[in-house]
Amino acid sequence: MAESVTPRSQDYSRWYLDVIREAALADYGPVKGTMVIRPYGYALWENVKEQLDRRFKETGHENAYFPLFIPYSFIEKEKTHIAGFSPELALVTHAGGKELEEPLVVRPTSETIINHMFSQWIQSWRDLPLLINQWCNVVRWELRTRPFLRTSEFLWQEGHTAHATAEEAEEEAVRMLGVYTDFAVNEAAIPVVPGRKSNIEKFAGADRSYTIEAMMGDGKALQSGTSHNLGQNFAKAFEIRYLNESNERAYVWQTSWGLSTRMVGGIIMTHGDDKGLILPPRLAPVQAVIVPIWNKEGEKETVLQVVAQVEATLKAAGIRVKSDRNEQNTAGWKFNEWEMKGVPLRIEIGPKDVAKQAVVFARRDRPGKEGKEFGIPLAEVAERAQEWLTEIQAALLARAIAFRDANIIDVTSPEQFREVVASSQWARVRWAGTDEQERQIKEETGATIRCFPLDQPGSSGPCFYTGQEASEVALFAKAY
Amino acid sequence: MAESVTPRSQDYSRWYLDVIREAALADYGPVKGTMVIRPYGYALWENVKEQLDRRFKETGHENAYFPLFIPYSFIEKEKTHIAGFSPELALVTHAGGKELEEPLVVRPTSETIINHMFSQWIQSWRDLPLLINQWCNVVRWELRTRPFLRTSEFLWQEGHTAHATAEEAEEEAVRMLGVYTDFAVNEAAIPVVPGRKSNIEKFAGADRSYTIEAMMGDGKALQSGTSHNLGQNFAKAFEIRYLNESNERAYVWQTSWGLSTRMVGGIIMTHGDDKGLILPPRLAPVQAVIVPIWNKEGEKETVLQVVAQVEATLKAAGIRVKSDRNEQNTAGWKFNEWEMKGVPLRIEIGPKDVAKQAVVFARRDRPGKEGKEFGIPLAEVAERAQEWLTEIQAALLARAIAFRDANIIDVTSPEQFREVVASSQWARVRWAGTDEQERQIKEETGATIRCFPLDQPGSSGPCFYTGQEASEVALFAKAY
Repeated sequence: MAESVTPRSQDYSRWYLDVIREAALADYGPVKGTMVIRPYGYALWENVKEQLDRRFKETGHENAYFPLFIPYSFIEKEKTHIAGFSPELALVTHAGGKELEEPLVVRPTSETIINHMFSQWIQSWRDLPLLINQWCNVVRWELRTRPFLRTSEFLWQEGHTAHATAEEAEEEAVRMLGVYTDFAVNEAAIPVVPGRKSNIEKFAGADRSYTIEAMMGDGKALQSGTSHNLGQNFAKAFEIRYLNESNERAYVWQTSWGLSTRMVGGIIMTHGDDKGLILPPRLAPVQAVIVPIWNKEGEKETVLQVVAQVEATLKAAGIRVKSDRNEQNTAGWKFNEWEMKGVPLRIEIGPKDVAKQAVVFARRDRPGKEGKEFGIPLAEVAERAQEWLTEIQAALLARAIAFRDANIIDVTSPEQFREVVASSQWARVRWAGTDEQERQIKEETGATIRCFPLDQPGSSGPCFYTGQEASEVALFAKAY
Repeated sequence: MAESVTPRSQDYSRWYLDVIREAALADYGPVKGTMVIRPYGYALWENVKEQLDRRFKETGHENAYFPLFIPYSFIEKEKTHIAGFSPELALVTHAGGKELEEPLVVRPTSETIINHMFSQWIQSWRDLPLLINQWCNVVRWELRTRPFLRTSEFLWQEGHTAHATAEEAEEEAVRMLGVYTDFAVNEAAIPVVPGRKSNIEKFAGADRSYTIEAMMGDGKALQSGTSHNLGQNFAKAFEIRYLNESNERAYVWQTSWGLSTRMVGGIIMTHGDDKGLILPPRLAPVQAVIVPIWNKEGEKETVLQVVAQVEATLKAAGIRVKSDRNEQNTAGWKFNEWEMKGVPLRIEIGPKDVAKQAVVFARRDRPGKEGKEFGIPLAEVAERAQEWLTEIQAALLARAIAFRDANIIDVTSPEQFREVVASSQWARVRWAGTDEQERQIKEETGATIRCFPLDQPGSSGPCFYTGQEASEVALFAKAY
């Protein structure tokens, strides 16, 4: 327990796996590429879910549940969709002691089965827009896996909507990208860049894909959530038509959007340090941990009385608090343990503090004395804890923004591009290249277009690669 | 929309399916035996989840997530377990474009994979008790399916715990049965009978199984949740041992317990009537629906103003309220629609009510004038709505208790037994028969031992079937 982790500077990838193990976020499952989400990791995911679910409901979406098993023939109906997903499918061929007539696909995503149902539910313009979300597990058989980032089964939500017009579908796709951005920035303290995917990076079956891209501590990009304008591709494959107000039968326009347990990996790699996790207060399963300190048996009772009092006060104020009364571990051991688990605020209570009717606060994001304050009066403990948590949340975001902005470099030549990518930074470039040229760059440098940011300069200039006039700016980076 | 349903008295089974369709709770999936849970049905399940999850956390359990796919060799490790589940398994044989070396079982329940992980996590007595719950989907390939009651995929929670002693495991199994009973009675208004399963009805792999049995409107029993004392069966199959305080390696003692979307079927069949669903207020997705009524265009604005005011007042009071402002449907059509959906309280607001600064309340569980009250003052609307919802919740429970108690008959002879079972009632009998005799009775009458109720008379008497002295009373009934 609480062994130290590999320093990030030494081996970022091992640091990541060490933190997951030592903070007890997840474990490997017995089947290759699968993951067990342990209680602490799952509690973090529950907080992610709660904050997203609230936003989905506020924007008019309803939850539903569709079957895990999809007839193989459904997956084949949309041609680019099957081309994209077929290498990753898991197939059920036997059930109930018999071989099935048609193999069943374990859902890798649910466009096909949901749109099959939509074709039955949608009759007229009165049934539109249809705004559905599903929380579920999906399976994509991946060769190279890593906990939270890429596992053969993962948990996610997938939104699926149908609209009367192309404009409404586009608005919805952009609206949900905004919901993801708002969640990432204001809950996870991850300053994602919202943007549009390039043609070769878009979802299999979409007309246009949007993404939020986050910069991890090693400079790599993490695609953290995507929102797709599906046009009429699935509507045509599944015959989803409605009677419009002029009494004509028309195909609907659709979107889908998803965010997964991958977000947990993003939180680890955005905020963590060499002592372990650092969790944003708004999502932390434990926002404040109280560590009682005493030496002599006589001190114990008075200290624990104050601990109980502070715990009750913080709980009543709506703070997720825990006191660590374990008597087998030293206070120092506990400090390390809760730092590893990334608890934003530590409250120390010893005999001297009790005598002064005060406690000590220590914040996880600032190590040592700088992050510590003595003599917080007992009477102010709830109010001050709220202030500290708000301040820590803001500080994490500010630090991540500073890191991101220091590592996005405006690049105007292929030489500079190679340098920037080689030093694990992101290159912001004017781009007018072809799909083929984009693939070439990936082969040469490992970098891909993460997105065309929604926030564009508005002027044009020469493409860094082709020299042609380019109206858009793209972000290139290596990615997870 | 809002077609009438088959009367219960005419065909109970068709009534059930009609209500599910007309209230838009669920739909059939494209793969035989699968179900789509539609938004209204899923919202009901979300409320079930929330109330159970709160209780699990209050009793010290933590949520986690384990993989969907279980190596086939795991399922075989516990002999009675594989014997019970093997006819129902779905197998993944191909993934990522290749045939797998070992087929993977799509979890029918997770004892095997969870206990494989427990064997790694549990080292010493300090790791005990380990109290884990999982919310997930499971697959059991059933031949005869029915929405919510028996589907080849369903949603549930499964608790899995490990303890140092046999006594603690038994206490936990009984405690969680108590949690289920408390939930069923106080949230779902279903007066379940908690008891012990007979030897032949217990879970495949358990030493002892407990159940909550509910009486449906047609007199059949519905097993609505189960809690199992697993003894050391899985501990021995998966080598889950810990160092006890005497430094000896000992096997743990375990429980598992589950409740599923079947509960939604139980709610439908306990409370519904020929007009559709009746939902207990504590679980209803919509607790109160406001129906505005006006004839002339001039009345509309004043009515809708009061509707908005009442809606805001109820929302602020924490009531789940909806107003139906649809202008294409008549008020009468809306009454039918919301009755079909089982909304406990209807609030009607028309021009005359507005003039009197009052509204009309109508309760779903009492049809016609008897359930209607005019002139509820606007100023009291939130307080009175709370009172009505509390009263409706209590009335539903009282009615279900009366129905249950009127249909459990003390039976002392095989002749009386056949009569009682033939008239769709439950037979309460003294029982000292063998497993073989229990099977005989099932073959002859269709009735099985639903449980030995925890609440026993405490005296002994002659077994109704064998005449031998019996120390226990059992409930026999036909079941879903």
